[in-house]
Amino acid sequence: MEHEFSIIEQYFKSIATQDEGVELGPGDDCAILSFPAGYEACLSTDTLVESVHFPQHCPPHVVAARAMGANLSDLAAMGAEPHSFLLSLTLPSVDEQWLREFSEALRQLIQRYRISLAGGNLSRGSLSVSMTVIGQVPVNSAVRRSGAKVGDDIYVSGTLGDAGRGLELVKQGNYENYLAGRYCEPSPRLSTGMGLRGIASSMIDLSDGLFGDLNHVCLASGRGAVIEASRLPISDELRASTSLASAVRMALFAGDDYELCFTAAPAMRSEVKVVESETGVPLTRIGEIRDGSEVVTVDVNGVPLPQDDTSYQHF
Amino acid sequence: MEHEFSIIEQYFKSIATQDEGVELGPGDDCAILSFPAGYEACLSTDTLVESVHFPQHCPPHVVAARAMGANLSDLAAMGAEPHSFLLSLTLPSVDEQWLREFSEALRQLIQRYRISLAGGNLSRGSLSVSMTVIGQVPVNSAVRRSGAKVGDDIYVSGTLGDAGRGLELVKQGNYENYLAGRYCEPSPRLSTGMGLRGIASSMIDLSDGLFGDLNHVCLASGRGAVIEASRLPISDELRASTSLASAVRMALFAGDDYELCFTAAPAMRSEVKVVESETGVPLTRIGEIRDGSEVVTVDVNGVPLPQDDTSYQHF
Repeated sequence: MEHEFSIIEQYFKSIATQDEGVELGPGDDCAILSFPAGYEACLSTDTLVESVHFPQHCPPHVVAARAMGANLSDLAAMGAEPHSFLLSLTLPSVDEQWLREFSEALRQLIQRYRISLAGGNLSRGSLSVSMTVIGQVPVNSAVRRSGAKVGDDIYVSGTLGDAGRGLELVKQGNYENYLAGRYCEPSPRLSTGMGLRGIASSMIDLSDGLFGDLNHVCLASGRGAVIEASRLPISDELRASTSLASAVRMALFAGDDYELCFTAAPAMRSEVKVVESETGVPLTRIGEIRDGSEVVTVDVNGVPLPQDDTSYQHF
Repeated sequence: MEHEFSIIEQYFKSIATQDEGVELGPGDDCAILSFPAGYEACLSTDTLVESVHFPQHCPPHVVAARAMGANLSDLAAMGAEPHSFLLSLTLPSVDEQWLREFSEALRQLIQRYRISLAGGNLSRGSLSVSMTVIGQVPVNSAVRRSGAKVGDDIYVSGTLGDAGRGLELVKQGNYENYLAGRYCEPSPRLSTGMGLRGIASSMIDLSDGLFGDLNHVCLASGRGAVIEASRLPISDELRASTSLASAVRMALFAGDDYELCFTAAPAMRSEVKVVESETGVPLTRIGEIRDGSEVVTVDVNGVPLPQDDTSYQHF
């Protein structure tokens, strides 16, 4: 991209702190990273495309927060600690105002999450933000999707469905409320994820909705699951904003919450409570891993509810 | 993206070999990577956008080869060995034919360069390919841009300007010739890069053209450089395809060659020869690092030539 180098210099080099583990930051052909002895690296990449992953004319700080949130949430789901990230930005033109706001938001996120900008590149094209996050985790302690056992409890962090309803409000141009904030500025559950190392038998982050994401855990673990709909943690704000049926549907099927869903043996219940009280993030037991391969949602009487979003419209 | 999981399963999971160093490949929230004791990780990310970095309706195997070539070339420029990569693909729609050809080309590149596909994601959007490559290098042996000293020789690998002329031919729909091949399927100089560890004082890969890229080395090193135009390695094919002036202009200013440019002390000339004969890739001495901050190109009589592409039109 024309002027790529001066743009990098102006907006991004100043926010590229060189913390421990980043031997060489932006400005060379590669970043050079090091990891402490006894640690492995966790890497994830996610691309956010305008009009697909965020609305057109979305404020730059929301784009930054959603890109960083989605990527850090993948580290949280492994129990990894943030190390550094690479940023690949595609812009239709050089919009100085946009770049200023985006890089300022990024600077704040870098400080909040103690993660280093290690490198990146700029291209011309329709607006999209591609991030690769790098985390670190002690050898063999990352929590995978594949470890769920029959009889394990199923938990989720925080509350579910807020971001789904928030997106509806954002699409109406309504950014200034709790639910929109849950969509615009996700809070990746890094401390919770790290705290659950050695406790959770499997973990995933909720980007596509609980029902679909728990299905991935079940597939990877070769197990089934039952969710008790009445146990789903629903915020007062979501409950006040829509019908109970719609709130439950959003908790099950709407994406973008970036909460964690994990499994743990019943013997671990007190350890899970400790993580909850140490992090201040609620951890709610919502169901159980079973034999089989399906995720089933049941009501308070144990009667199965509709299995997909479409049929839930009629719930 | 709708069906993201079945597409990943169908086209990409089968080519994701789990080699040494990849503790966990695609299919979880993160890939888990390990590096041998005494090694650092080198990371680079590059996005290729349709109509910007490759022509519209470009064959999928060319997109794969150019994305992989551009990214591996950044590893080569550090003297790093390929470890693994992440792929972030943005597609306007699910084109099965395109995906089949792209993933088959990727499979061949994975084998050729012994690099593992460790993870990635698919999004809907205009066609672009974002890759993050990961390499490894013994601690403190990566070759940076900043080490050039006054009096150092300046070298380039291979021949220059081929890809620039190749792109002109490709734009005319002419893919079946040597020069087009140099544009479509770059050969990242990995063995040369690794061989030059401990020999080269600075190194960069030539993606934007020798003149501009050598300027980055000079800026990082706080030095100037002189290039002797008559020493520039120009292929017989390029020479036969255009005027001498145009060939020299392309060698200096056209991008996409993905050759290496490096500096080394004159005392290292015999070591450079050894790398050349061991890899079979020609290494040509084209100039010298000087005091100052500018890159100057001179003719056989030492007379400076025009300093930019525009003025070169009149060379």
